[in-house]
Amino acid sequence: MRRASVFRLSMAHPGDVSALDRLITDGTVRAAEVVAVIGKTEGNGGVNDFTRGYFTQSLMGLLSRHLNRPPARLIREIPCVLSGGTEGVMSPHYSVFCISAGAAVPREFPSALAIGTAFSEPVPAEEIGRRAHVESVASAVRSAVGDAGIERLEEVHFVQVKCPCVTAARAAAAVAAGKAPRTSDSSRSMAFARAAGAFGVALALNEIAPEDFDDDSLLTDFSIQSPRASISSGIEVECNEVVVLGNSSGWSGPLRIAHRPMIDALDIGAVVDTLADLDIEARPQVASGAVSRIASVLVKCEPDRRGNVRGNRHTMLDDIDINAQRHIRGAVAGLVAGVVGDGRIFVSGGAEHQGPDGGGLLAIIASQRPDGSA
Amino acid sequence: MRRASVFRLSMAHPGDVSALDRLITDGTVRAAEVVAVIGKTEGNGGVNDFTRGYFTQSLMGLLSRHLNRPPARLIREIPCVLSGGTEGVMSPHYSVFCISAGAAVPREFPSALAIGTAFSEPVPAEEIGRRAHVESVASAVRSAVGDAGIERLEEVHFVQVKCPCVTAARAAAAVAAGKAPRTSDSSRSMAFARAAGAFGVALALNEIAPEDFDDDSLLTDFSIQSPRASISSGIEVECNEVVVLGNSSGWSGPLRIAHRPMIDALDIGAVVDTLADLDIEARPQVASGAVSRIASVLVKCEPDRRGNVRGNRHTMLDDIDINAQRHIRGAVAGLVAGVVGDGRIFVSGGAEHQGPDGGGLLAIIASQRPDGSA
Amino acid sequence: MRRASVFRLSMAHPGDVSALDRLITDGTVRAAEVVAVIGKTEGNGGVNDFTRGYFTQSLMGLLSRHLNRPPARLIREIPCVLSGGTEGVMSPHYSVFCISAGAAVPREFPSALAIGTAFSEPVPAEEIGRRAHVESVASAVRSAVGDAGIERLEEVHFVQVKCPCVTAARAAAAVAAGKAPRTSDSSRSMAFARAAGAFGVALALNEIAPEDFDDDSLLTDFSIQSPRASISSGIEVECNEVVVLGNSSGWSGPLRIAHRPMIDALDIGAVVDTLADLDIEARPQVASGAVSRIASVLVKCEPDRRGNVRGNRHTMLDDIDINAQRHIRGAVAGLVAGVVGDGRIFVSGGAEHQGPDGGGLLAIIASQRPDGSA
Amino acid sequence: MRRASVFRLSMAHPGDVSALDRLITDGTVRAAEVVAVIGKTEGNGGVNDFTRGYFTQSLMGLLSRHLNRPPARLIREIPCVLSGGTEGVMSPHYSVFCISAGAAVPREFPSALAIGTAFSEPVPAEEIGRRAHVESVASAVRSAVGDAGIERLEEVHFVQVKCPCVTAARAAAAVAAGKAPRTSDSSRSMAFARAAGAFGVALALNEIAPEDFDDDSLLTDFSIQSPRASISSGIEVECNEVVVLGNSSGWSGPLRIAHRPMIDALDIGAVVDTLADLDIEARPQVASGAVSRIASVLVKCEPDRRGNVRGNRHTMLDDIDINAQRHIRGAVAGLVAGVVGDGRIFVSGGAEHQGPDGGGLLAIIASQRPDGSA
Repeated sequence: MRRASVFRLSMAHPGDVSALDRLITDGTVRAAEVVAVIGKTEGNGGVNDFTRGYFTQSLMGLLSRHLNRPPARLIREIPCVLSGGTEGVMSPHYSVFCISAGAAVPREFPSALAIGTAFSEPVPAEEIGRRAHVESVASAVRSAVGDAGIERLEEVHFVQVKCPCVTAARAAAAVAAGKAPRTSDSSRSMAFARAAGAFGVALALNEIAPEDFDDDSLLTDFSIQSPRASISSGIEVECNEVVVLGNSSGWSGPLRIAHRPMIDALDIGAVVDTLADLDIEARPQVASGAVSRIASVLVKCEPDRRGNVRGNRHTMLDDIDINAQRHIRGAVAGLVAGVVGDGRIFVSGGAEHQGPDGGGLLAIIASQRPDGSA
Repeated sequence: MRRASVFRLSMAHPGDVSALDRLITDGTVRAAEVVAVIGKTEGNGGVNDFTRGYFTQSLMGLLSRHLNRPPARLIREIPCVLSGGTEGVMSPHYSVFCISAGAAVPREFPSALAIGTAFSEPVPAEEIGRRAHVESVASAVRSAVGDAGIERLEEVHFVQVKCPCVTAARAAAAVAAGKAPRTSDSSRSMAFARAAGAFGVALALNEIAPEDFDDDSLLTDFSIQSPRASISSGIEVECNEVVVLGNSSGWSGPLRIAHRPMIDALDIGAVVDTLADLDIEARPQVASGAVSRIASVLVKCEPDRRGNVRGNRHTMLDDIDINAQRHIRGAVAGLVAGVVGDGRIFVSGGAEHQGPDGGGLLAIIASQRPDGSA
Repeated sequence: MRRASVFRLSMAHPGDVSALDRLITDGTVRAAEVVAVIGKTEGNGGVNDFTRGYFTQSLMGLLSRHLNRPPARLIREIPCVLSGGTEGVMSPHYSVFCISAGAAVPREFPSALAIGTAFSEPVPAEEIGRRAHVESVASAVRSAVGDAGIERLEEVHFVQVKCPCVTAARAAAAVAAGKAPRTSDSSRSMAFARAAGAFGVALALNEIAPEDFDDDSLLTDFSIQSPRASISSGIEVECNEVVVLGNSSGWSGPLRIAHRPMIDALDIGAVVDTLADLDIEARPQVASGAVSRIASVLVKCEPDRRGNVRGNRHTMLDDIDINAQRHIRGAVAGLVAGVVGDGRIFVSGGAEHQGPDGGGLLAIIASQRPDGSA
Repeated sequence: MRRASVFRLSMAHPGDVSALDRLITDGTVRAAEVVAVIGKTEGNGGVNDFTRGYFTQSLMGLLSRHLNRPPARLIREIPCVLSGGTEGVMSPHYSVFCISAGAAVPREFPSALAIGTAFSEPVPAEEIGRRAHVESVASAVRSAVGDAGIERLEEVHFVQVKCPCVTAARAAAAVAAGKAPRTSDSSRSMAFARAAGAFGVALALNEIAPEDFDDDSLLTDFSIQSPRASISSGIEVECNEVVVLGNSSGWSGPLRIAHRPMIDALDIGAVVDTLADLDIEARPQVASGAVSRIASVLVKCEPDRRGNVRGNRHTMLDDIDINAQRHIRGAVAGLVAGVVGDGRIFVSGGAEHQGPDGGGLLAIIASQRPDGSA
């Protein structure tokens, strides 16, 4: 019986993987058991945020030294999903997901956190943001669900996907080859890729049926959404990378995951309810003794595209000094951190079709042991 | 018996005072009864934020037309305190404080919101940020408390002060005249002015005694603080402008005010407790039916100068893309708005000596009537 | 014989029109002779730049007091074109264009600066960025050329147009009325409006013929451009406002205007050549004695959309910390100010179809008198 | 006889050292001959700019692979000086300085570019920004001049120094050990370190004498400056790293260096004159055929601290949206790139005591061969 562990580690700067190095060196973490990393780095979160690449290079270099395998290979096996931007009270950190072969110890809880990963085939430029892309993601998600050994889809609580997008250069190459990419604008392409990722998750989890959408639905019909899809998109990947998190009776260990959609940026109830699903009270904040039970907090959010929150005008979308995604991350992180009492939370923007329009979603992994020990 | 009213109005842009114009035109507000305005405009909140000046010019122009008195006079009689920066979910708005002569109607509640204002003499450049400045503020605060007719100092809940600071030009003039200003750096001078304002409030409210501090205490000894002082500083004023808000048995009307210090940027308990003081529940959010009871939410906050929040590193102070005050305003506003369910809140940075170091303070004005009618 | 004057005035902040107030008070400028204002304010230059509105309100208030006419009327008669953003060495300033009735003094130069203005009818939302808009601009430009009394179109050197654009609200209203606006994205609409303005200028100046373009040419065929069109677009206007500047034998006074296209952001030759057209040497900089001959410098520029300048990658388009238009304005202003030896220059972004793609254009007004007296 | 080469290479992002990799692989560059790197990366240039660390990690990783030596050793032998921020027309690039053992070919020019490097001992926290720091830099500069074999100090044209500074943590440690660091504010410490570096260069080059200054002169007496000192400061170094560039009859090859102080941000004459020193005409721009003669352009600049340029107010210092150093870099780069016709220039801010106050300095390396071949 496999056992999932999550190590949430702080970094002093985006090239600092010393905390993981120490855990590997002292034997707490076995490098070969690392299956995925999800983290927040202190960049701006935009196209010109290089803190993600810096951290990834540092992480893969570290694992390469410990595993004696080339970084270029590891990067195709271990999803490393980073969101730039630690606005406000967020603290730069990364969660290392590990799977160890089950010990012979008796099961402690009826079910426990299950992790599965998968990589799709490369997505051709002309397919990005279209049905073929959606199906490629769906297929990889199904594969990762299988990898996790999760039998019932309602036990899937969070699916992180990293999708490729079309750069101006890739778009030009596709056109030269007689193909028609959906857009040649890289930032628009990133949004289409995130939409395709969300549709793919919804499809794999049977939240929508194949006939429920066509290409025009992406970035248009926001009634189509998955409250379990967290999608990022970047020029650095060519295939879809998937991490599925859920609960399964086939796994041991004290961890458990729960999730909720967020109706809008003020939906504090979603945070409190998700904690309640994990038997953690927040009245109004998680008690200091229980903070250590929380292993990871994962949030997606989006500035409301209609320009207001509960009827009051917001100014995020028209601000050319601060990017709208930086605004919303800072606000939602302030709310979520206030409830959980901790700034080491993953709050990521670009939540098109990921939870309700104008809102987003939230997942929390916590220990089922009252003392929070892992 | 006087009666205080608060009208919280939205603006479409910083020159938009049409909402107040409508209320004056339809008779809801009498222009002569406007005694103070506190608002949030959608600038950057820094030295080069001109949305404050634009709004002030627009407001005084409007009142001038209705009162047939020159704007230059009104600006010396009606404190207009604006904080720039509506980061995240904050919505640009302004609260108009009015006092009407008491009608002969019987008193509804044992005590009610009381408002007092005062203007000090101009503060010479060489006194700014020194004891003489502290005493000038204290004297004006005492005068405003008297103006409000508040008899017990514990009934004062929020004191807004706008202090002058030294520009490079004023500093040079002072030096030429043989005086020694505390600093000639304008942004440092603003911080010293805010510190003097906070000390002045603490002194007037008997929170500290005259012998508890000297000039060196300002911006150094952060154990000295007032949880009821909200100070702004700007080059556009030459004297201290004071608005005192409290509760008094000498006032009628349904409004009431309460306040709490905020321990740090995650102190959600302070929000919930202040609401509880006003008999408003937040479990975890104010119920939609009770949101309209809230007339004004006033918050001061500050990025923790030690670089972490509850032991986790934050990145606000070292970010040269987004000013640290913009970061913290967005985060704290996200938290407070999530609890009160409304983005029309006043969250202002620069909270030196205003509430606990690394935290700040919060005051809420609400109707005591269950249906929120005013 | 009419005589044109240009007063280039500094402002201490965007609400400061005291320099013009002094000139009016001391009799140098007659308020009734002010026909147009073109200036740079220290905002960010984006949708959320309110320094333009603040200055306009201040200017119209000043003229209203001197002319005893309501500001709402003046704003429809006197084009006030402001570009926000004084990046780098640019200095906030405004050029006041005045026309005085000709004195009986003998003509000093064979031709002199001529000014004409015009306002079109309001442009319906569904016409913005389409041929009808182009023709509306062209018609107003022809009217302004007539107003200026310029007989030969090659004597027109600079046409400033301020065009309306479609806000989300206007677009929704148009759709509700059964009309189809070109776009409902306000920033895209601004770009279409600038394109229509440039096409309109080109059409009016016979640079293109009506059959040379259709609606699809706007923002697509960048070979269509006018090196004399300077277009801004904003939500605050409903009709096209036009200022035509040229030289004419029908005008007196010492001023003269010249212009050149700029090939790219490094085209220093355009600056030197325009100065040479005005008999001003720059080797490499205008001599300090000749700097005062220059009355106004007007520049349009654009970050190269292909992502490089002379084969070297630039980073302006992908930067989410600093808007691309702020980048390019700062760079081109650094170059132009270095040649003319003065930071009081008007450098504006958003130069689609205004001069060569990736470059822009430049116009300079200077005194023909060697001592620069006006 | 040694021979210096400079390879100016473009990068696609801050982790991209592929251009150097290709040159090493094809034999153009021998990895062991690389002695220093000076470059511009596309970060924000502030404390939270991690593009410098990312590039350095990538570069040292590359050299490590080719030299089979650990990166941690190389970083202490090869100065890698990076300035973040490619505002406006600047293009991300890096100049690789190499020294090859002299071939037996006859000398081509009477003197040629000479390069020397040196590393000082670590500077204790309490010495940073004080005389001991100045002397440490001066000693290292003398050592680097010796390393370069430059006999006459007037043949030194550019001295790049990277100095350590005090972080909050280092300052606290020093205080705990009973030492008194000059400041515990990291950004102030960086400025003091740059000042100490400039004084050290001036001292080593006999521009000032030891009795000309004391600790109070740093950041106060701006009449003390060196037009050949280019200083950066960072938390990532503990000792002073020095690169000296000059001309010497002891070196072969076609390259030569010249420099000039810049009086202010508009000093285009300094650019033209430096080019003239290298027999390159700019009328007003370097002819396209001669652009390839230029091997490297190195500039330091600073926003004028008095708030104006040639009497006109600038807005750089009060802008909280764009850092003042980003403003000035963009403006000066626009000017210099316009004259040299190339955006691959190194323009760095923080020029305290490095050239005239409010201005800075400029050095250019160019081939003496008319065809620019190297």
